[in-house]
Amino acid sequence: MKAVIPYKKASAKSRLSSVLSQEEREEFVEIMLNQVIDSVREAGIENIDILSPSMYGLENMTKARVLLDKSDLNEALNMYLGQAKEPTLIVMADLPLLSPKHIKAIISTKEDVCIVPGKGGGTNILFVKTPSSYRVKYYGSSFLTHCSIAVDAGQNIEIYDSFFGAMDIDEPDDLVELLIHGEGYAKKYISQKFRLDISRGRVRLSQI
Amino acid sequence: MKAVIPYKKASAKSRLSSVLSQEEREEFVEIMLNQVIDSVREAGIENIDILSPSMYGLENMTKARVLLDKSDLNEALNMYLGQAKEPTLIVMADLPLLSPKHIKAIISTKEDVCIVPGKGGGTNILFVKTPSSYRVKYYGSSFLTHCSIAVDAGQNIEIYDSFFGAMDIDEPDDLVELLIHGEGYAKKYISQKFRLDISRGRVRLSQI
Repeated sequence: MKAVIPYKKASAKSRLSSVLSQEEREEFVEIMLNQVIDSVREAGIENIDILSPSMYGLENMTKARVLLDKSDLNEALNMYLGQAKEPTLIVMADLPLLSPKHIKAIISTKEDVCIVPGKGGGTNILFVKTPSSYRVKYYGSSFLTHCSIAVDAGQNIEIYDSFFGAMDIDEPDDLVELLIHGEGYAKKYISQKFRLDISRGRVRLSQI
Repeated sequence: MKAVIPYKKASAKSRLSSVLSQEEREEFVEIMLNQVIDSVREAGIENIDILSPSMYGLENMTKARVLLDKSDLNEALNMYLGQAKEPTLIVMADLPLLSPKHIKAIISTKEDVCIVPGKGGGTNILFVKTPSSYRVKYYGSSFLTHCSIAVDAGQNIEIYDSFFGAMDIDEPDDLVELLIHGEGYAKKYISQKFRLDISRGRVRLSQI
């Protein structure tokens, strides 16, 4: 079994630019990446690849192997899957609420494919037992697409229902979830900069 | 064991007013309520109360008992809990992605209290085994508050991690989740009015 984490540090997370500078966003995605790697490793997967279009920020990475591929996300991942000879976990790097317990449950699926939906129709984690007969198509409503691809290939699907797994961090409101439900360095980083504002009904982010 | 569902039909879901008229929103909350009642009943709970400040829209309710209480949500629920003599499930009426399977898992908790977080710091479902020694405080960051209340009362908590349970329907973006992941009448109602627009990266709601 192995895991692959697509990652790009340069100018990451532009939808957080109203609350974090580029330097902060790049620091933050690196922290989230490390947290995801740690969760994957703690779940017992030792063979971990980071798939990135650039070495930027990965020069000193020792926890995982770095694979450089300048093609787009789908092309790079499909090339990777085509060569994979063992069950493969594709996990996004921006899931700081993910724990080893989630990953253990996902890779224990009895089905051929396990999909963890992200909010807004996304796919946050895909576990594929026979990766060479699967292909990915991220962006847009990738959750529905990834379900269809499995069905078309005659593969059974488990949909893994997890709020914490669904919570990829894209927008300021997502940082609220991290402050409320998070643990570890990603939460620590954000709680040094923001606090929860519960003064007006809904919980909002407030700069410290 | 019993369940209580707080509910108010009149002028419901104002944050959906940019995409649904008041009449539509009132129809929609009634459909969601019925779906939640059906899920609770299918999970094996027969004793179901609807707690409402008004009889409006509940005149012909036969699936559950209607309790009228004009005080605010917290006051009404705490009065209810104070008189409850059996384990009590408090479930919000706007959870159309909730299934009987979720409810069965929640009421099977080994802890004293099971909390299902909603997005944005909310509490979507609370299961309390000894309701007379618990009190609720909805609004604001109620998830954290409800955890503290349990801890202060010496009660153990299970946090039930579910994307579908977390997805209360408040805003137009939430209808996207219903269209992607939903089933039943609530999804049917919304899919008669909207379709998914995946033309520009993120999935958006588009009026039919």
